[in-house]
Parts: sequence; structure tokens; C-alpha cells
Amino acid sequence: MIITVTPNPALDVSYRVAQLNPGRSHRVRDVHERAGGKGLNVSRVLHGQGIRTLVVAPVGGAHGDAIREDLDAAGIEHLLLPVPGPTRRTIAVVAEEDTSGEATLFNEPGSHLGEADWQRFRALLTTRLAGAPVLVCSGSLPPGCGADSYAELVGDARSRSVPAIVDATGPALLAAAEAGADLVKPNAVELRETTGQDDPVTGARQLRDRGAAAVIVSLGPDGLLAVTGEGSWRAAPPFAVSGNPTGAGDAAVAALAAGIAGQQDWPERLRNAVAWSAAAAAAPVAGTLDGGVLREISDRIAVQPA
Amino acid sequence: MIITVTPNPALDVSYRVAQLNPGRSHRVRDVHERAGGKGLNVSRVLHGQGIRTLVVAPVGGAHGDAIREDLDAAGIEHLLLPVPGPTRRTIAVVAEEDTSGEATLFNEPGSHLGEADWQRFRALLTTRLAGAPVLVCSGSLPPGCGADSYAELVGDARSRSVPAIVDATGPALLAAAEAGADLVKPNAVELRETTGQDDPVTGARQLRDRGAAAVIVSLGPDGLLAVTGEGSWRAAPPFAVSGNPTGAGDAAVAALAAGIAGQQDWPERLRNAVAWSAAAAAAPVAGTLDGGVLREISDRIAVQPA
Repeated sequence: MIITVTPNPALDVSYRVAQLNPGRSHRVRDVHERAGGKGLNVSRVLHGQGIRTLVVAPVGGAHGDAIREDLDAAGIEHLLLPVPGPTRRTIAVVAEEDTSGEATLFNEPGSHLGEADWQRFRALLTTRLAGAPVLVCSGSLPPGCGADSYAELVGDARSRSVPAIVDATGPALLAAAEAGADLVKPNAVELRETTGQDDPVTGARQLRDRGAAAVIVSLGPDGLLAVTGEGSWRAAPPFAVSGNPTGAGDAAVAALAAGIAGQQDWPERLRNAVAWSAAAAAAPVAGTLDGGVLREISDRIAVQPA
Repeated sequence: MIITVTPNPALDVSYRVAQLNPGRSHRVRDVHERAGGKGLNVSRVLHGQGIRTLVVAPVGGAHGDAIREDLDAAGIEHLLLPVPGPTRRTIAVVAEEDTSGEATLFNEPGSHLGEADWQRFRALLTTRLAGAPVLVCSGSLPPGCGADSYAELVGDARSRSVPAIVDATGPALLAAAEAGADLVKPNAVELRETTGQDDPVTGARQLRDRGAAAVIVSLGPDGLLAVTGEGSWRAAPPFAVSGNPTGAGDAAVAALAAGIAGQQDWPERLRNAVAWSAAAAAAPVAGTLDGGVLREISDRIAVQPA
């Protein structure tokens, strides 16, 4: 089954308010909580598409308990390492009278994860790596984790012939590329911040030069750019899908992981990644796909050499 | 000891961010949590001034546990009734680069508290009422609680000759006045929303006509208006204190409760209420007073007949 690693998971809390007025007091109409974090969202998408997946994450405190319960309720398999620091929260505020549909997000940094706990986590993950079709490492590292943490996991995966995907940014992304990650997937802003290159093709080539076998850059509503050893492509949806952008990138990663597991060729992986991403943007919550958008869009994605 | 009732307590979470940009994602620099809710803040102020106080509140879930631990750590006495619904959160977002100093608040509505649990809560409170110098009822009622809930507590207090202060708004405030509350303390906006009167003196007289023995209206930086059976006064600070407005009203209530317990006359109560309120506005967190402001301001508050 496809393994996702979420080193810094979160209890995602969403608030519905009428309007958002900075400096004022707001009555929250509705509170929803669910297990979150980028790798966990990838698993949620895979699970929703009937693809077996395992969530691996460190958890602590009451929010950690809530994550375990939510995954159990969703029927998603997990391997959770209890750690001393409490799991963080994120808050998403959705203003109903704001037509942009953009949520305002507050992301807590997360608790410190010490070197000993990280190595325990790495050892736990290793017990399940052999034979896995893909390892996905997604999202921020918790405070205390070194920038080479994902690179270590990439090494663990490669030594067991498991392809590794890393969705990260900055020094953690660079180190993962240098460790020979099979695929790294920054978005355009993350790629620019990491490489200093304004042009995504130049930035993606730079990560390939560093050691990543393939680089896929998400370009928001414009789709994806892929720079791989087999060629370079751009994949674009037939129309822009507005709505919830949170999780669109995670859905793209889920499709790419499924495509690598299913040994699809790159154009097919990219088509699915754009379709799942658009279907995730149209869905109300991260980790789910809008079935109507998925059916409507899947055969209409243009994949062209870049 | 002065008893405070907080029917809808909260775990107050505060976030420090650089700027607040609606529709964007924010990295939270700092997370602080503490036991909150208006009655609880009143007790915190009293405790800080060396006045004995007891917090009475229903609590549930992990946030309820956190409230209990925080009160224990602060050394504040409490009588907490475990209830099924989890205690709510509030989130206060402080933007460091925003010079207004106004936090953006998100107040969860709280869990449903059924009639049976309310009556259990009322019975628990009653065990401690006899001999108490004052009962303070503060803040919103949880969903499920009828508008006459505070009125019931006022009746319980009055039948034991315990003076009752109610800091509430809307139908709960009206019902408390009609039940003969010794003191009600809306702010100007709450008074207008409750009575429909633009002029605070007219609105305050209306609440007195309904049955409240005294009405004190907080006017923000302009101080307080008092309409009582012994006379009417305005009490104003010598200068406006900018800063954290959260909890300034609770500090005023704490001073009024202490003044009733200490059998001060109205002008003295009002002087202290304005001083504590300004000192609370100048303090970084609700429930604490800025000692410097308190010393500087206490002798310089003008109390004049209204």
C-alpha cells in the first residue's frame, strides 16, 4: 500500500463566520474538526479512490487522540507514533459573505520533535517500507527536525527500492533532491523560494541537477509543469476551477503516487494529477474529490511537451 | 468568598502573527492557551488583588481538562461540573505589525447544555451560595440554556440574601433585571441592543424600571455610567488607556463585586471599577491588571452626578 508520511500533522479546525473583520470579534457559526496535514490529505484522497494507503505520523496530546479517532472513523489505516509534544492545530476561517471563497488560515508551528523521537519515528516507518509501491513525504517538518530529515527517509526508501515522492519547500526540499528523490513537487512559489529562479522550467531543471529524478511544479489553475528524465510536459485543465484551493496540491500528489504505483507513463500521471487537483479544488473540504468535476474534466486535459 | 458563574467557559487560545491578511495563509509565531470566559476572568482579577473567589462552571472534554489544570496552576479555587458537551475554544489573533493593538477574535458558540445538566449545575452552585458576599453571573449562556437561566440564579441568590451581579445581554439581561438583580452591567452597545434606547441613561433607567436595583453601563474609554437607587453618576479616567480592551469590562465587574462585598459607597465602587478597567486594558492578557497604571490612575478618577 502507498505509505504517506506526515511529520507535522494537525487537527484541522474550520470556522464558518459571516464576514471577516480584522480587529473585531466574530461569532463562529459552525465548528468542524478533522485530522489534517499534507501527507494525511494525500492518504484521504487515495482512500477515497479505493487505493490502499497507510498514514504514518507522530502524534501527541488531545489533538493526537482526535486525529487517531478521525482516521479510525474514516477507515484509513495508520501507524501513529505517540510523542511527548502535543499535536498542533490549524484554523481555517471561511467567511460566508465573502464571494472569493478563499479561507483565511492560521497554521500553528507544531511541537518540538527531538532527534531521538525522530529516529524512533524513522525506525517505525522502516518496518513498513519493504515492498511498498511508493513513499510520499509531505508538508512541513516540526520544529527541532533537521533540514535533512526528508533526505534520510528518501535514503531509507531508495535502499529498499521504494520510489520516494517529496512535497516540501526550502532546505528540506533541496536536501531531498540531493538524496535522489524520485519525484519532488513544489508549487511555483515554493520553487522560486527554494531555487531563487523566477522561471519554473529553470528552477525545476536546477532541482534535477541537484539529484531529483523528476520535478513537478504545480501552477495553480494553470495546471502542472513536469521536468523528468523521460521528457518535459505541461498539463492544463480545460477551464479554471474556482473554490477551495487547500488540498488541490495534495490531490495532485495522490494521483502522481497512484500513477507511479500503477506504472503509468508520465502523460497519464499528469492527466490524472490535473484532474484530481481540479476535483479537489471543487470539493468543500481538503482530501475529497468532486465526482462531477472529475468525470467532466478527465478526458479534456491537454498534455503537451514543454 | 466572591462566587463567579461562567456558564459557557472557554479555552482561550491566542495566536501571534505578523500581519492579518484575510483570504491568506498565516504562520502562527506563538500559541498561548489559558482558561477563559467572562466570570472566570472576573475571578482571575479578584485573585490577583488578593480577594478570595470561587469559579463555578460546567466543563467537558479536553478543553475542560485544560481549564481545570490552568486554574489549579494559578491557585484559583473552583467548583467545576463535568458535563457531556466539550468546552468551547476562543481564538484571539494578534497581528504584531498592526499598531491598533486590536485582536481579532473568533468565539465558538459552545456545546449544548441540556435542562437536566443546567439544573444539576444550579444545584451545585446552590451548595456554596449561603454566606457568599456576592454572586457574579457573567458572559454568554451556552446553546440550550433558556433566557431565564441567569434569572433563576438571581432568584437563588436573593432567597439567600446574596447580592447578584449579572453581566449579560439581550433577553438573559432583561430576565435577570426582572428577577431583581442587584446590579446589571451591560456595555453601551449591549444596552442599546437590549433596550432599543440610543441614550444610555434612558436605557439604564428602563432596566431599573424592569427590576434591576442598579445599572452600570461601561462606555469604553469614557468610563462608566451608574444609575442606582442612591443616585446616578458618571465616572471617567483622567486619560484614555489604549491597549487590550478584552477583559476591561470583566475587571470593572470584579471591582464592583469587591466594592459590594466591602460595602463601599457607589462613588468609591465606581472609582475602583474605572481604575481596574483601565489597568486591565493596559495589561497584555485578560484577567490581569497593570500595576503602574493602577497606581497612576486611582486617585485621578472624576466621579460626578449624572
